[in-house]
Amino acid sequence: MGDEVILLNFWVSPYGIRVRIALEEKGIKYENREEDVNKKSPLLLQMNPVNKTIPVLIHNGKPICESLIAVEYIDEVWNDKSPLLPSDPYQRSQARFWTNYVDTKMYEIAVKIWKSEGEEKEAAKEEFLECLKLIEEQLGDKPYFGGDNLGLLDIVLVPLICYTYTYNIYGNFINETQYPKIIAWSKRCALKETVSKCLPEEQRVKEVFSKRRQDLNK
Amino acid sequence: MGDEVILLNFWVSPYGIRVRIALEEKGIKYENREEDVNKKSPLLLQMNPVNKTIPVLIHNGKPICESLIAVEYIDEVWNDKSPLLPSDPYQRSQARFWTNYVDTKMYEIAVKIWKSEGEEKEAAKEEFLECLKLIEEQLGDKPYFGGDNLGLLDIVLVPLICYTYTYNIYGNFINETQYPKIIAWSKRCALKETVSKCLPEEQRVKEVFSKRRQDLNK
Repeated sequence: MGDEVILLNFWVSPYGIRVRIALEEKGIKYENREEDVNKKSPLLLQMNPVNKTIPVLIHNGKPICESLIAVEYIDEVWNDKSPLLPSDPYQRSQARFWTNYVDTKMYEIAVKIWKSEGEEKEAAKEEFLECLKLIEEQLGDKPYFGGDNLGLLDIVLVPLICYTYTYNIYGNFINETQYPKIIAWSKRCALKETVSKCLPEEQRVKEVFSKRRQDLNK
Repeated sequence: MGDEVILLNFWVSPYGIRVRIALEEKGIKYENREEDVNKKSPLLLQMNPVNKTIPVLIHNGKPICESLIAVEYIDEVWNDKSPLLPSDPYQRSQARFWTNYVDTKMYEIAVKIWKSEGEEKEAAKEEFLECLKLIEEQLGDKPYFGGDNLGLLDIVLVPLICYTYTYNIYGNFINETQYPKIIAWSKRCALKETVSKCLPEEQRVKEVFSKRRQDLNK
């Protein structure tokens, strides 16, 4: 193909992880370029002048910003394998609905858990668990939300569940026996090389979050 | 076709207007059912149990929630006329990027203008105008953001510009001479029957916003 694919990224970003998993699922060779979030590169500022945020996918010199838009772009351009969205329009709309639910509501609650203390933190955890129950219902008995293979919703959920459950970044508040299907799904995902190679090491993630926690309390 | 298309809606909602314009552009016959936002119908709660919000598009008994998802669904199902997204994946990604920009950033700022007072309100207006300049650049010399016809970004922007500029809901703060292209575009859109029939009457909108303003100050 001769495609040049570059990802401007920051390794701990769940948004960056989404784009990486999509690229891996499609088997696309790409160069991952780490950005210093405190000193953004001229290339990042040039490629995403509006939001100035990672991840930015650069395909043959042209930027695609915003992780979900990049994942849909990847699915549309490399459409010969591993579809990330169903072909049926109704099924697509439902995948987008739940993806949007996780991307807005659940990610926001995760930030709330992270930033709050005491009662407010506990309430946010409860709220997160209620969402998780709804999401688990969507999985049903399928191996992945996408069916037999990873789909858009899986990709958006993987980094969130990895950080909240697998790495216990916000404390151990997801009970395995209460969410058996999500936990089994999460372990199934982590066994896939296309996923595991995109997830950063637990210890490194914990160090970053611990450092940020200290900065938050300063 | 024998399609049954119902829209659960609330006439003043800019989100509902989006879906209506998309349906009109595609020439789809549909039944618009007004919801009482203070007393939601059993059908709304059944069709959108997660968010319980309008608009909900119901196509042959199946619900599609969230306005942007509904517009993309309409574009995918009725794909024989008036495409709302470009066929080229890169152009699609750019249309989605700017749509997302308007849908999140500009709609949020509009709410900020609405809810704040004094210096904060003035700052929000300035911020809105900066976004508008960026958006105007995207229009360039095209009649519509979608090119020769309305596209996704036009659909999302129409109700916002109608309320902020044409109806001056937040006061007269958009100077016609500073945004000539956007204003010309807005007038061009309003001349299209597919748009004008979806926009509520100015006086009714002003009454609703004036009433809400009073409630906000209580």
